[in-house]
Amino acid sequence: MVNETASVEQWGIFEVTLHGPGEGNPFQDVELTAQFRYKHRAIEVDGFYDGDGTYRIRFMPDTQGEWMYRTQSNCAELRDVEGSFSCHAPDAGNHGPVRVAHTYHFAYADGTPYKQLGTTCYAWTHQGDELEEQTLATLSSAPFNKLRMCVFPKHYAFNENEPEFYPFPCLSRGSSKWQGKWDADVFEGWSFDFSRFDPAFFQHFEQRVADLMERGIEADIILFHPYDRWGFSTMSPELDDRYLRYIVARLSAYRNVWWSMANEYDLMRSKTMDDWDRFFRIVQERDPYQHLRSIHNCHGFYDHAKPWVTHQSIQHSDLAHTLTWREEYKKPVVVDECCYEGNIPYGWGNISGLEMVHRFWEGTAHGGYVGHGDTFLHPEDILWWAKGGVLHGECAPRLAFFRKVTGQSPAAGLDPIPDVLFMFSCVGQPHEYYLTYFGTHQPAQMTFRLPEGERYQGEVINIWDMTVTPLDEPVVRNAVVQLPGKPYHALVLRRAD
Amino acid sequence: MVNETASVEQWGIFEVTLHGPGEGNPFQDVELTAQFRYKHRAIEVDGFYDGDGTYRIRFMPDTQGEWMYRTQSNCAELRDVEGSFSCHAPDAGNHGPVRVAHTYHFAYADGTPYKQLGTTCYAWTHQGDELEEQTLATLSSAPFNKLRMCVFPKHYAFNENEPEFYPFPCLSRGSSKWQGKWDADVFEGWSFDFSRFDPAFFQHFEQRVADLMERGIEADIILFHPYDRWGFSTMSPELDDRYLRYIVARLSAYRNVWWSMANEYDLMRSKTMDDWDRFFRIVQERDPYQHLRSIHNCHGFYDHAKPWVTHQSIQHSDLAHTLTWREEYKKPVVVDECCYEGNIPYGWGNISGLEMVHRFWEGTAHGGYVGHGDTFLHPEDILWWAKGGVLHGECAPRLAFFRKVTGQSPAAGLDPIPDVLFMFSCVGQPHEYYLTYFGTHQPAQMTFRLPEGERYQGEVINIWDMTVTPLDEPVVRNAVVQLPGKPYHALVLRRAD
Repeated sequence: MVNETASVEQWGIFEVTLHGPGEGNPFQDVELTAQFRYKHRAIEVDGFYDGDGTYRIRFMPDTQGEWMYRTQSNCAELRDVEGSFSCHAPDAGNHGPVRVAHTYHFAYADGTPYKQLGTTCYAWTHQGDELEEQTLATLSSAPFNKLRMCVFPKHYAFNENEPEFYPFPCLSRGSSKWQGKWDADVFEGWSFDFSRFDPAFFQHFEQRVADLMERGIEADIILFHPYDRWGFSTMSPELDDRYLRYIVARLSAYRNVWWSMANEYDLMRSKTMDDWDRFFRIVQERDPYQHLRSIHNCHGFYDHAKPWVTHQSIQHSDLAHTLTWREEYKKPVVVDECCYEGNIPYGWGNISGLEMVHRFWEGTAHGGYVGHGDTFLHPEDILWWAKGGVLHGECAPRLAFFRKVTGQSPAAGLDPIPDVLFMFSCVGQPHEYYLTYFGTHQPAQMTFRLPEGERYQGEVINIWDMTVTPLDEPVVRNAVVQLPGKPYHALVLRRAD
Repeated sequence: MVNETASVEQWGIFEVTLHGPGEGNPFQDVELTAQFRYKHRAIEVDGFYDGDGTYRIRFMPDTQGEWMYRTQSNCAELRDVEGSFSCHAPDAGNHGPVRVAHTYHFAYADGTPYKQLGTTCYAWTHQGDELEEQTLATLSSAPFNKLRMCVFPKHYAFNENEPEFYPFPCLSRGSSKWQGKWDADVFEGWSFDFSRFDPAFFQHFEQRVADLMERGIEADIILFHPYDRWGFSTMSPELDDRYLRYIVARLSAYRNVWWSMANEYDLMRSKTMDDWDRFFRIVQERDPYQHLRSIHNCHGFYDHAKPWVTHQSIQHSDLAHTLTWREEYKKPVVVDECCYEGNIPYGWGNISGLEMVHRFWEGTAHGGYVGHGDTFLHPEDILWWAKGGVLHGECAPRLAFFRKVTGQSPAAGLDPIPDVLFMFSCVGQPHEYYLTYFGTHQPAQMTFRLPEGERYQGEVINIWDMTVTPLDEPVVRNAVVQLPGKPYHALVLRRAD
């Protein structure tokens, strides 16, 4: 991915490596940016210090052709460095970064629809290579195309192990034991040199982002979270802002990056709403590529209507509300957390596999997108939701089936189509495609208020047994359609003429 | 039940039969009441005209001993009739009428707890003897102890047949076909003499109420409803009020009567909120026994805080809201309609049997009571929910099991006990009994914040397989309890020492 040659694929990474001063505190003392030019366009990009006198500037070109660049710096050695490179067509599987499309949906930059099917491994990059490689192997054959992951290590139940790397140089170590507390309850003993970053931490982290990119998985990078024993959740505003600028400079050239300001932002007692607004603004201003930006709640929502929010990242267990959230904020809805398949004592982590799959269909049938997690008790506390490893639940093949079925839905997305059914949501694109999911309901018959004079081919979907059963007869307006009369079925109607 | 002898059981019916004028319109012209006296107490009771010159006064004595009565009337033949009777101990199975107990629950007048487990056969008394007898046979072996039933016949999908009896003399007949409309869309052709009641209708109806009483089933009598093709839902206020006084005079001496002002009152476009208030007041003033009074919504709730409402009769599919409704109105919550087991096209009538049973446990685990219905397509449109007959679903045995398990819960009722669990509701009585239901959640472990130093015997309940598995070890505060790790289980903790 990282590429210093004179040619780079579109939406790949062109990296300029420079050598400069290693003394003092280059993280704070040295300013470095570059201007990248393509014909009349000029794009300002932040560089960053990577330790040992090495400075880097990363750039993701969005246009094929010849690009030039020139650096600026308050350090003479790094100033006015010029160069050029050629941007060629993207390799297979590279569709560019994901953007909002059609108001409520997503597409890659090349126009390919992106239908979000996320999972969650909050602290997977803090588990050491053996487990991290296993996580990547699992992801390679799993149906997920997005992963929620925290930058900072995690302190929580089932999360007592120390990470291999810390984002700042560690000065003294404290206790690791989970005592049921987080955020502003930093354990005694921990201290860090917050004036510097530890490049090894970020080099490792960005390698994992690249590993996901290779696998076609978006990295939904959680910039802050409350599950903390080290003091990373209670830094000063100045430190928070410097950290944001640094990680944005390092990571924004990775096309699979999404910025999640926080997980459960409303549990971080030391941050104010002004802080969250400012964090969004910093990321918005410093990221030249305008990667997706969101913020994830525990209880109350952040105001997703604010202009720097690109989509809604929601924790809620009733997916039918998706309709309301779409209407309220006019942005895509991603219910990243609607409870996880598992068996742990926490109510958010012990729904059945059937219920997890059910919620994917429910959210989809209300015009949104859903996220997965897997939280089964493990003798060594290796729970997928936090540490990765392997999946223990039953829903992954059903979500692969879900991805296959919904992958055949319209590129314009699944939007609510009112008045097709009484008491059931129907989504799709009028005159083209209608999807209804019945959940725990089990109608044996149903009529659909389809447009007059149009014929549709119907398919009955069993979401758990993963069967697709075509209806014998074409479906027309108000005709009685025979259905299985069993729960957990969807119906797809596809225009036949 | 109807008893003219000189002795009647407590909460039985003592009936005075008188003969008077049969000419003119006695329904409107003749006033008849009686005063019943026991020692210092005096109770005023309305009589009613039963056709053919026959007048009746029914009385349900609530106290054992000697009672006296004396009639009043504007008709000399009916005036100043005196008599007495003896009230003896109730027969086995007669516990008196049901009252509100402990704010959120119910008990019979003799103090026996009444744990509501209702079902719904809206129009069962309008189906002719053969089907009605079959309904009674079904009820005799079913777990239900309450039945929601309409006075007026029903016009709706699956309800096109004409009743054998009409409440008013029929002057001309119209069409019967269901055209998807109700309330103020009276079909052409129908006309009735609203100035008179048809005693045969009411004699039949009250016989069915008595049939339920014999079986220990409360009759939740729905006084108005919108599903109408005859004009019974759009009578004038004067006629509405006269009808209410008549039916209260006839039926209130039946100890198993509950008064439901309406089903889906908010769908009756011709009635105002003032009408509903007035109906409540009339029933409240004319019923000497103060039977339970409620009103059932479609969308928006009537203000259950009004003093004449004894309990909340709710249509809603999310049983977890029961906690909120309890808090808001401080009255028992009966979710009479949370969708029905079935397979018809309407979303309210096609949940699976498992989902129906699940909702009973869910409502109970949030401090409320739930109602059942059975709505399966039938070649002759005989759906239990409207017409009775037999049950087609799978949940009746599971509800019998539910009744058995919850029947062993505290007499004071199942009230929310806060802070026992994180994210799960727990109900019971502190220091005595705790019930938690996990629904689609499947914890393999759980700890309970029980009172310090107390030991509890645990039972794991499989709500569908109907098994009760005692835990090996007593449960104490914050001890890890091993659970099945499968959905649809409840846990009961009963004080062991």
